[in-house]
Amino acid sequence: MQGKFIVVEGLEGAGKSSAIASLVSHLQAKSIATLTVREPGGTPLAEALRDLVKQEWQETVTAETELLLMYASRVQLVENVIKPALKAGKWVIADRHDLSSRAYQGGGRELGDSKLRTLKQLVLGDFAPDLTLLLDLDPEIGLQRARERGELDRIEQETVAFFERTRARYLEIAEADRSIQVIDAEQPMGEVHQALVNALEIALFGERGYPS
Amino acid sequence: MQGKFIVVEGLEGAGKSSAIASLVSHLQAKSIATLTVREPGGTPLAEALRDLVKQEWQETVTAETELLLMYASRVQLVENVIKPALKAGKWVIADRHDLSSRAYQGGGRELGDSKLRTLKQLVLGDFAPDLTLLLDLDPEIGLQRARERGELDRIEQETVAFFERTRARYLEIAEADRSIQVIDAEQPMGEVHQALVNALEIALFGERGYPS
Repeated sequence: MQGKFIVVEGLEGAGKSSAIASLVSHLQAKSIATLTVREPGGTPLAEALRDLVKQEWQETVTAETELLLMYASRVQLVENVIKPALKAGKWVIADRHDLSSRAYQGGGRELGDSKLRTLKQLVLGDFAPDLTLLLDLDPEIGLQRARERGELDRIEQETVAFFERTRARYLEIAEADRSIQVIDAEQPMGEVHQALVNALEIALFGERGYPS
Repeated sequence: MQGKFIVVEGLEGAGKSSAIASLVSHLQAKSIATLTVREPGGTPLAEALRDLVKQEWQETVTAETELLLMYASRVQLVENVIKPALKAGKWVIADRHDLSSRAYQGGGRELGDSKLRTLKQLVLGDFAPDLTLLLDLDPEIGLQRARERGELDRIEQETVAFFERTRARYLEIAEADRSIQVIDAEQPMGEVHQALVNALEIALFGERGYPS
């Protein structure tokens, strides 16, 4: 049986890594084989692109170039890793996918959602997650957490206004797409994880596995 | 005054480098400042992408990924090098541009021209060469010349059928676009250079500068 494709999305410092660990442990307790991946990256070529897109350059990296590199990395990961794993029955949990580009490059960099949807259709066709869990929080809080973690990369050094636009686009898209569940990531971590697991149960097992 | 953007196109071994040298010397004799560029490459990030796209990988590089990397490199070159040079009045002579992707990825890799035109419009808008000179020759002859020059890269190692499709797409597009001039690159080099200079004179100076 084909596995499910679950994506965890959100701004820097939203708690995606710990959310993914919690989802994986929940699924493993159900004896579901999982594979976790992150974007950009996840194949040798995609990791090389991750390095290029995150490093500082002595030239302007245009919004279009950044977008094309994110998609180049994404296509390699989808075709060479995610699709084969799903076909083998594994559940794939991804740290970011297409929605990140729609929010960051489409919203943050103001390329617009129509351009983003066209490009996605062009290179990935109808491939889409079964469920996206969007960890939503105030960018100032997320950036503070990211700063505490260490040095910020080229994109993480953007202005707060950039991340405000990114968050707004995330929420706009989620509003219109029932496969995206918004989780309040400003709650205490235990509550965030409970909310994630509940959303997963309702969306993919058709039941609420835990008292809310 | 804005400079002109001239592109030299063709299969491996068609003689693009020597054609460009001949065009540059013709323009310099008219006291026109020129800048030559090549694709993929031409900026630090674009050169890094050139390396990635030409090297061998322990994974399949999908046709879509190859296309996205070519465009990422192209956008950096256009925005950071070609447009500023044209604005400064220089004439830019490019070894490959958008038409290469339409022929190689669109034709050779069979992604189709409609997909290619959509992507181009998405990331480069209406930016286009003033003149494209397409050096046309039998792929077998071109590949033989390329082999004599040294080792072939990932793309140059493709089958003859791939290059036949690429050539056919080049010629189809040229048929429908008056800004593309086809030059028979199987002629002796002196005649090829004469034909190039004639095409340049007619297209950009509105006169035939030399007896044909």
